Amino acid sequence: MPYETTTPEQMEAILASAEDAARELLRSTREQRAGYLRAAADALDAAADLLVPIAQRETSLPEPRLRGELKRTTFQLRLFAEVVTDGRYLDARIDRADPDWPMGAPRPDLRRTQFPLGPVAVFSASNFPFAFSVAGGDSASALAAGCPVVVKAHSGHLELSAETARIVSTALHAAGAPKGIFAIVFGTEAGRSLILDPRIKAAGFTGSIAGGRALFDLAQSRAEPIPFFGELGSNNPVFVTEAADRERGEQIAEQFVASFTLGSGQFCTKPGALFVPRGSRILEALRRIDLPAGAPMLNDRIREGYLSSVDELRSHGAAPLVSGSEPEGAAPSPALYISTAEAVLADPHAMLAECFGPSSLVVEYEREDQLPLLAAALEGQLTAAVHAEAGCQVRALVDTLIVKAGRVLWNEWPTGVSVTHAQQHGGPYPASTSSSSTSVGTAAIARFLRPVAFQGFPQELLPDELRERPLRPVPRMVDGQ
Amino acid sequence: MPYETTTPEQMEAILASAEDAARELLRSTREQRAGYLRAAADALDAAADLLVPIAQRETSLPEPRLRGELKRTTFQLRLFAEVVTDGRYLDARIDRADPDWPMGAPRPDLRRTQFPLGPVAVFSASNFPFAFSVAGGDSASALAAGCPVVVKAHSGHLELSAETARIVSTALHAAGAPKGIFAIVFGTEAGRSLILDPRIKAAGFTGSIAGGRALFDLAQSRAEPIPFFGELGSNNPVFVTEAADRERGEQIAEQFVASFTLGSGQFCTKPGALFVPRGSRILEALRRIDLPAGAPMLNDRIREGYLSSVDELRSHGAAPLVSGSEPEGAAPSPALYISTAEAVLADPHAMLAECFGPSSLVVEYEREDQLPLLAAALEGQLTAAVHAEAGCQVRALVDTLIVKAGRVLWNEWPTGVSVTHAQQHGGPYPASTSSSSTSVGTAAIARFLRPVAFQGFPQELLPDELRERPLRPVPRMVDGQ
Repeated sequence: MPYETTTPEQMEAILASAEDAARELLRSTREQRAGYLRAAADALDAAADLLVPIAQRETSLPEPRLRGELKRTTFQLRLFAEVVTDGRYLDARIDRADPDWPMGAPRPDLRRTQFPLGPVAVFSASNFPFAFSVAGGDSASALAAGCPVVVKAHSGHLELSAETARIVSTALHAAGAPKGIFAIVFGTEAGRSLILDPRIKAAGFTGSIAGGRALFDLAQSRAEPIPFFGELGSNNPVFVTEAADRERGEQIAEQFVASFTLGSGQFCTKPGALFVPRGSRILEALRRIDLPAGAPMLNDRIREGYLSSVDELRSHGAAPLVSGSEPEGAAPSPALYISTAEAVLADPHAMLAECFGPSSLVVEYEREDQLPLLAAALEGQLTAAVHAEAGCQVRALVDTLIVKAGRVLWNEWPTGVSVTHAQQHGGPYPASTSSSSTSVGTAAIARFLRPVAFQGFPQELLPDELRERPLRPVPRMVDGQ
Repeated sequence: MPYETTTPEQMEAILASAEDAARELLRSTREQRAGYLRAAADALDAAADLLVPIAQRETSLPEPRLRGELKRTTFQLRLFAEVVTDGRYLDARIDRADPDWPMGAPRPDLRRTQFPLGPVAVFSASNFPFAFSVAGGDSASALAAGCPVVVKAHSGHLELSAETARIVSTALHAAGAPKGIFAIVFGTEAGRSLILDPRIKAAGFTGSIAGGRALFDLAQSRAEPIPFFGELGSNNPVFVTEAADRERGEQIAEQFVASFTLGSGQFCTKPGALFVPRGSRILEALRRIDLPAGAPMLNDRIREGYLSSVDELRSHGAAPLVSGSEPEGAAPSPALYISTAEAVLADPHAMLAECFGPSSLVVEYEREDQLPLLAAALEGQLTAAVHAEAGCQVRALVDTLIVKAGRVLWNEWPTGVSVTHAQQHGGPYPASTSSSSTSVGTAAIARFLRPVAFQGFPQELLPDELRERPLRPVPRMVDGQ
């Protein structure tokens, strides 16, 4: 095996170096950090022809998807460079001294901005070898915040991880970043040591509920517990009203199949349940549609997990929608199952568990007023979607979904998570371990920051953004305005 | 005992009602919630002559302090009403659909705002019977966010807690708030059930490291872990340079004594260590100053804790600064101890442990360049202060303190925590369990909020603040601007 487990000695050197880099980064300017991010993006774009074939070989994902994902990844790095330059993320606040502050005591001069947490551990994902991996969202937002990053490589794409880390490290150093700003470690035991090391001050994770919870528990068991930003599992249910079924049943059926089979269903936002009225046009259409052929999955462990979660669903009474097409073998076929609202309400945890792969469950309901009840039975979700017609009575359903999910969609599909300012990728547990934060979009930078207030400080010792005459001004709240 | 432990049946009714209230609050307007907060503030102000004598009897704190604290408390409720009305706290973001979004795929219409987490448990403090208790900062910020509050009363002021809760509940209901918006429970076992109940979605705590860590561990052990905002312990060290000692030694000594003995040292921001140059004027002055007389402490448990932590400090070699005056009895006297930088560096954990009461440790250093080393040995702190002259070489010290503390002060004292927009009360563990948030100041509202993104939603189903033509406009980021 070419990527040997990181030894304790290597780990010690990496962490000592990351700690040094954290100190140096405290003195870096926002412009410098934006430069680091752009340098990493440029280097990765330039290395596409090297990296994509390795990714293809290691993950079985098709080339156009991988090229698109790499583009998304470098776009993301550059978008965070803009965020850092802009400076609004600092939420800078200045309260000047006020002898008449109505609290009952004079207000001192207080000025507040954000500082990086320190070295961050990033546990990368199997299913996005670029965008949620070595140089993915967690790394981009941590670097943007000014935190050194130590990535735990995913076993599903070791060579790609090593090569990506090499390219990113080289680019960061060429751009003048401190030596220990970026490193990668290999092996499960290295991951455990990483999360338990007192020099690591936060962690990002994308993966399964079981794996994420185990690392979360380690992070919280430390003498100094640390924030653990885990993006775990989600069913991403889709609710279709009677009117929408009548008006667009055929179209919804086609879009649903495209969404749940996209990338062989290996997305955390794959729709895992479609709630339709009994006797729907959608169901009729689904029975006629030929599902796409099976394709190789990311790796054997994921293939086996997929087959066993399909078995689990069947053991709870879900029946194949079209008889005969059971997934099996090296390239398991997509599969659709059917059940009822009653069965789902009887055991929502089992019936709406995440099934990572190209399957989904059609759930027939009797009456539309069951939908809010079904929504109330959900665990935390990354996404929840409603397909309805304008003017429909769906307020109660939407109100319930807002409580359950980080992103709610209207007549759209959850796969395809745009990297934007208003994106929210995260949700109540078990969708994520930190529902107040996002792992996609520019708001993710907040994860790795910590506010510090300066009281009565002389101008020359304040961070630039808090001075009366800053060299690089940022938007600020001054005296509450 | 007049305030009996809350029974499991009572607890069930309280939590069921809080869950209902959470649903109702989701539909409340910001104006309504601001009204609830103002109504609670008005009712508490009107009840001062009832509440203050109860507080005096239960906590032994003097009347002027308690009247001032009540004023701070109602000011705080009204300040959060302003924050809610203003709406900036929502961090509303709108990304309109963009077919040419450079990520490589069209950007859908995404709109993001904040929603309340749900019912919040508030574990109130012994030492601020108003400001960090039933109607204190955690309750104010949770209510402002739209979360129902269930307070666990502190055993040190049960009658005051019950009366405060009665007045707040009555005022909230009169102002039209939903029935279950506010409740109080009594007893350690009730506190445990509260933190473990799946209907509770977050917790605030102010108290000791041991007590806070036990509740933190329970919160993280749940099937659905929840955010636990604990403000635990802090030493609040103060570093004095040679020049400052020369210029203002006498004055610093007087201010130091006033700060560490204020309120019998029963503040989480009491300065627990003063680093001074060997042979300082400060030390000379301190040996001459008569410390104030002892006063009754908040309760017996705190008095015993104070005496035993003083013993602990002495057992590690700290010597009384003036011989003879050992704290003891029902109203233990203030006490000052002395040690060296060397001894502190040998066991910083023991020498700089929080000692809750009117004692502090003077630490003599040999050379000013030891100060950054001493700072680096600190655990996480709520505050750290520097007393220095303009133009001094203290950059390395300040840089280290920024990493260790939530608030850094320049020639000021940590006691007295102003409630403002730029305040930060919190710091790396064990100062708090969530260094990215604050328990004092308007930024505290962020603790109890969770973002939700709406994708492709029709105007009439969006929250007002995300519509193209909002009725109650708030500042927003639109298309990144």
